[in-house]
Amino acid sequence: MMKYDYGKDEYKNFIVAEEKFDKERLGKCESIMYLGNGYMGLRSATEENYFNETRNLFVSGTFNKYSETEVTELPNMPDVTNMLIYIDGERFSLEFGENKEYIRTLNLKNAELERSFIWISPKGKEIKFNFRRFVSLKDLHLIGNYMQVEALNGSFDIEVTTGINSRSTNSGSQHLIEGEKRIYEKKYIQSVQKTNESGIDVVLNTATKACVNNNEIEEPTMFIDRRKVCLTYKAFVEKGKTFTLEKISNIYTSRDIDLENNELNYIREYSLNNIKGEYKKGYKKLAEENKEEWKEKVWDKYKIDIKTNNDIDILSLRFAIYHLTIMTPMHDSRMGIGSKALSGEGYKGHSFWDTEVFTLPFFIYSNQKVARSLLEYRYKGLEGARKKAKENGYEGAMYPWEAAWISDGEVTPVWGEVDIITGKRTKILTGFIEQHITANVANAIWQYYMITNDKNFMDLYGYEIIFDTAIFWNSRMEWNKEKEQFEINDVIGPDEYKEHINNNAYTNYMAYRNIKLALEYCEKLKQGEKDIYNKLNEKLNIENYIQSFKEKLEKLYLPKPNENSIIPQDDTYLSKKVIDLTKYKNQENVGSIFKDYNLEQVNEIQVSKQADIMILFYVLENLFSKDIKIANYNYYEPKTLHDSSLSLSTHCILANDLGHYDVAYDLFKKACEIDLGPNMKTSDAGVHAASLGGIWQCVIMGFAGVRMLDGKLRINPKLPKHWDGLSFNIMWKGNDLKIEIQKDIMTIENNGNQSVEIEVFDNIYKVDNKQIISL
Amino acid sequence: MMKYDYGKDEYKNFIVAEEKFDKERLGKCESIMYLGNGYMGLRSATEENYFNETRNLFVSGTFNKYSETEVTELPNMPDVTNMLIYIDGERFSLEFGENKEYIRTLNLKNAELERSFIWISPKGKEIKFNFRRFVSLKDLHLIGNYMQVEALNGSFDIEVTTGINSRSTNSGSQHLIEGEKRIYEKKYIQSVQKTNESGIDVVLNTATKACVNNNEIEEPTMFIDRRKVCLTYKAFVEKGKTFTLEKISNIYTSRDIDLENNELNYIREYSLNNIKGEYKKGYKKLAEENKEEWKEKVWDKYKIDIKTNNDIDILSLRFAIYHLTIMTPMHDSRMGIGSKALSGEGYKGHSFWDTEVFTLPFFIYSNQKVARSLLEYRYKGLEGARKKAKENGYEGAMYPWEAAWISDGEVTPVWGEVDIITGKRTKILTGFIEQHITANVANAIWQYYMITNDKNFMDLYGYEIIFDTAIFWNSRMEWNKEKEQFEINDVIGPDEYKEHINNNAYTNYMAYRNIKLALEYCEKLKQGEKDIYNKLNEKLNIENYIQSFKEKLEKLYLPKPNENSIIPQDDTYLSKKVIDLTKYKNQENVGSIFKDYNLEQVNEIQVSKQADIMILFYVLENLFSKDIKIANYNYYEPKTLHDSSLSLSTHCILANDLGHYDVAYDLFKKACEIDLGPNMKTSDAGVHAASLGGIWQCVIMGFAGVRMLDGKLRINPKLPKHWDGLSFNIMWKGNDLKIEIQKDIMTIENNGNQSVEIEVFDNIYKVDNKQIISL
Repeated sequence: MMKYDYGKDEYKNFIVAEEKFDKERLGKCESIMYLGNGYMGLRSATEENYFNETRNLFVSGTFNKYSETEVTELPNMPDVTNMLIYIDGERFSLEFGENKEYIRTLNLKNAELERSFIWISPKGKEIKFNFRRFVSLKDLHLIGNYMQVEALNGSFDIEVTTGINSRSTNSGSQHLIEGEKRIYEKKYIQSVQKTNESGIDVVLNTATKACVNNNEIEEPTMFIDRRKVCLTYKAFVEKGKTFTLEKISNIYTSRDIDLENNELNYIREYSLNNIKGEYKKGYKKLAEENKEEWKEKVWDKYKIDIKTNNDIDILSLRFAIYHLTIMTPMHDSRMGIGSKALSGEGYKGHSFWDTEVFTLPFFIYSNQKVARSLLEYRYKGLEGARKKAKENGYEGAMYPWEAAWISDGEVTPVWGEVDIITGKRTKILTGFIEQHITANVANAIWQYYMITNDKNFMDLYGYEIIFDTAIFWNSRMEWNKEKEQFEINDVIGPDEYKEHINNNAYTNYMAYRNIKLALEYCEKLKQGEKDIYNKLNEKLNIENYIQSFKEKLEKLYLPKPNENSIIPQDDTYLSKKVIDLTKYKNQENVGSIFKDYNLEQVNEIQVSKQADIMILFYVLENLFSKDIKIANYNYYEPKTLHDSSLSLSTHCILANDLGHYDVAYDLFKKACEIDLGPNMKTSDAGVHAASLGGIWQCVIMGFAGVRMLDGKLRINPKLPKHWDGLSFNIMWKGNDLKIEIQKDIMTIENNGNQSVEIEVFDNIYKVDNKQIISL
Repeated sequence: MMKYDYGKDEYKNFIVAEEKFDKERLGKCESIMYLGNGYMGLRSATEENYFNETRNLFVSGTFNKYSETEVTELPNMPDVTNMLIYIDGERFSLEFGENKEYIRTLNLKNAELERSFIWISPKGKEIKFNFRRFVSLKDLHLIGNYMQVEALNGSFDIEVTTGINSRSTNSGSQHLIEGEKRIYEKKYIQSVQKTNESGIDVVLNTATKACVNNNEIEEPTMFIDRRKVCLTYKAFVEKGKTFTLEKISNIYTSRDIDLENNELNYIREYSLNNIKGEYKKGYKKLAEENKEEWKEKVWDKYKIDIKTNNDIDILSLRFAIYHLTIMTPMHDSRMGIGSKALSGEGYKGHSFWDTEVFTLPFFIYSNQKVARSLLEYRYKGLEGARKKAKENGYEGAMYPWEAAWISDGEVTPVWGEVDIITGKRTKILTGFIEQHITANVANAIWQYYMITNDKNFMDLYGYEIIFDTAIFWNSRMEWNKEKEQFEINDVIGPDEYKEHINNNAYTNYMAYRNIKLALEYCEKLKQGEKDIYNKLNEKLNIENYIQSFKEKLEKLYLPKPNENSIIPQDDTYLSKKVIDLTKYKNQENVGSIFKDYNLEQVNEIQVSKQADIMILFYVLENLFSKDIKIANYNYYEPKTLHDSSLSLSTHCILANDLGHYDVAYDLFKKACEIDLGPNMKTSDAGVHAASLGGIWQCVIMGFAGVRMLDGKLRINPKLPKHWDGLSFNIMWKGNDLKIEIQKDIMTIENNGNQSVEIEVFDNIYKVDNKQIISL
């Protein structure tokens, strides 16, 4: 069904293609081929409607809570892509008649979606269809649609109805209150909405031009109904002739940061003028502009190239970069990355630790400005994090497990679906007890600082986050009288199959790390930057905590390897039942263990959803010896079902580190398949943002072995045997490094102003210009 | 496509049938075949989904306003009828494969919907389908669904998913906040909702049983998602074997008057127990119980029979009675009849003057209890009517043009859709200036009293309405100094093609009538029932108005016939332009004049949407001579486009009165065709409640010539030449009269206790037992 090496010449390994239409599996391509630019995400539902379709348009940051009983989410915005097409009085749909030469492609290079086929109507007319679509990276508000229909074997009547449809909901919940809708000059349509709780104004405009053989159809029929406004174009298309329709649309909201004025009347006028101007350029010119923008801002910027005959590896990496680009609200630091990107309703557009651990590294190394914006989102989110700490009886900043708008605080739904066995609603615990995210944010700031050397960020935002999160952990720990140690009890670690556990190794180590960072930076600031320290002390009263920080660090229980070198994942994991997991390790769909056990039972088995100790090794690599890592990898990996999309890439990197090279490559391939693979259902609710970041990490952190350790750059490459080379650029403390890895040598070119120290397999190199290193 | 004489033997002329499935014209049968019982209305969307479907379930009186910018409406309740069916892995739909022997029938006698056909799947399997459905008249909360599938030419796998789907909206507006949803014993599903503004709790329960050859499938798969909870039954059906599925559902709300307690927990428990009990009876028994109820409560009660070979006339009348039964909330006097009944979103479930003038007469003559309930709705609505008067600067009770919940007052949307020419929103004026409804209510009360002699109603409710509406009119009139007369200016009359007119004849005469009634009843009460008068005087201060009432009556301008015997419809109508209307008189769809003129232009032409002077003649028959009526009929009818469904029946009655017998019969046929006719689009938004009442009026008021005139019964029958006889029962002041009209004689049987005086063609008969009258 899916094919990935469709492209040729300049588009080789830039094309994701669907070669057969499957009405039962629409979600896959809708998601993985979605278009966007960080400002908005447009799910790639087809122009014509299908029963199982999911039409989505999300705009970053426009969170709204439909009712008090729901949690805030990104509203599904009105639709502009739908086209109701009648040919000779029959509704066009690929469910009827036959089709041939069908191909739908997402061109990653141009960021354009295209679909073409010949449709043989039930009445026998052969008609060539071509649909194109883009979401502009140049003008973040702009959507372009193009349609071309050609009469191959006979003339026909065509009728196309399209406009703005505001009946879309989020699975039935309607976030938008309908405002005015207008048609201007029988061409421009404007529709105004307002979110029902957050009160965000939303304005959409669309302009349509339909032609038969380049003669414009001047008099469409206008149709206005509740939450709907459209134009209908009718034409007679003679054999050999062509009908085309161009539709240029935009969307603006009162949350837009690029607007001079966010009053509704201003937005209406401004956006209407914008569409009039853009529309004049026409689809082709606008698509060309978008292509140029992608070249400049993406493909020329993120230069990364694998030398291999395994085309899919190249495509997968580009696919990841495409998605990392379109999922990230680079334009506005009040917004984060949703865990399903902007491609579906899944997880409601909320940000998780996925950002800091799985997608942020790409930006830290490749696009510092964006990385900073994502961390500023956490700084602005301190308001919500402080609220959450207070609500939970703690001090400092306790980051939300799920974050939405910066001041919202925790937005994880409290109640999940009904437990099918007991009939009772399950309480979702992550928002309360999956707490490691707070340390993940602090650690990410440190990483960012170490790699970018962005002192300004630290002064303005970074220290404050690290201090206030340390204050949280300080208040969070519990004293165990008996053992005379501090503990962190009743949590969920990264392995979400274990709830209400005590002393999750990852959580305890990360909390330790967080406080340690705070102490170190306190010390540093007090010595060198007293002003900044005083300001922060005034705000957070940090001086008062220092003694306590030191005690906690000294007495915090950090699980150590046992006699078999195994670090206990938590206090009870190692004493739990061991069962034969073969069946679930070979599963086709994730979560298959729940067909045999419920969560309570799974809690009592030595089985893990995802990396837990492994992610600890990855993040705090220097703390553990290779032997310990190997012993634990061998113990835990067989017990890990990789039921989270966050699991495979971490294991891939660890496997490569530990010398399991074939396993590592295999895990990389599996990680690539999470969205791009043959499973047609797993992406229905949206793409897996963390996994897409993970693909890049497999390549750069895994095979290229790039790591920042204690503030220093280390590169220990070990390419898969199927690869002949890998080249990429990273920014290191402001210096642009071009790295080219071949079988036996690595070339490092430093295009920056400063000399860069790099450790390669235990040797230290000072690279000023260019260094060739034998491997 | 539609066929109407399908029934045989006991079902002859009781069956409305669709003989061919048409995926583009689903609205017609969804509407006209809808099921209901006055408590709820279930639109007959098919079990399987189609692109153009409209799935609706409305519960009377559950009004809710989605947002401040919308008006209150009946929310579209969660759906229980949908069945997602897969045969050999392919989704079943009549859009795919082929079908034969298709027939869908609404059996009016049993109030059961049935659909059967043989489906030849794309893979060539021949499968016989049979679907049945009813909404119970016995247990007003109950819905029954039945499905049977038989393998004709080979075995197949079947998978049916069904449950409760709460994603339904009103054209995108979501009124329901989702509460808990539960599955009990893998069989019973409960879903709880709450309306987002009016706070009405809604509880649905459903119980499903699927069998292969009577062996129950015990282990369905359970599926719970946002606003969705369902069970999936899978089976292998061998050739010649049968798969059946029964689904019994109920719906309760905290607005239900039959519940002992309207606390949510009580409703949940009560309704769940109810479904468990009903489910045990099984579909067939429940359907049988429903049939019995319909026999007793409808067909044995409303005995009415036309002797004719024109089967469609008989069916049409039964169709009208079926719909009058299911549209009317007989169970609760806090609720009125929606102008689109309970069959569609059109007019949002609001009540108009349609009730008093077009549907109430049926109940006054045939079911006094229901008629009283509908008038009590207006009494309870006084709260809203007084509010409206105040808001508009008047005194007394000014009835809403559109009424919803009793305390709501006016609910007509203020803003309509955008004027396609000017681009501006049009203001809907009816809620402000179509004011005759207030007099319609008062006059209906008088009619009810005269026909039923229900003194108790008058004492408790009737007088108060008549007095308070008279007070409204008293405050409404304007003094014209020049002409020295009172006028009622700036109104819309029944003919809505004329806005902002002065002295609409119908409005002025009806206002006169209203005040006159008040004066007469004041006089009567003061003389005979001083207590009641004093109580009302205390409440309304009516005594103070009496002098003013008298002056207004004396000086109110009542348009009189001009030199050509024409009564001017309003001050300017007769001076407006006369154009050739032939094109629009022969129109296929209503409103065709708007393709050539906009409303402003239509305002300046002598053209009427509907009966205006004619309805005046019908309601106040005795005020005008036959000559005057003929002259006006001949003048106005040619200028009337019958663009309202309220127009044809009135004209039919008038035409028969005036001796245009063929025209009358022709108009009757046209009135019958409003919903039942071949136009496949006109019922999409719902059936036409007034027109359905009008069908009954054509027969009884028109051809049978029944009229209450000045409190007396008159029967001047004149049957269409195609009819050999007509028999029916009416209640006259508590006496059950059986009337049988043949070509030359009429037999009247009085089964009541009192002698009844009847005028027949100017002769007065006193009927004690039985009277045979030559015609």
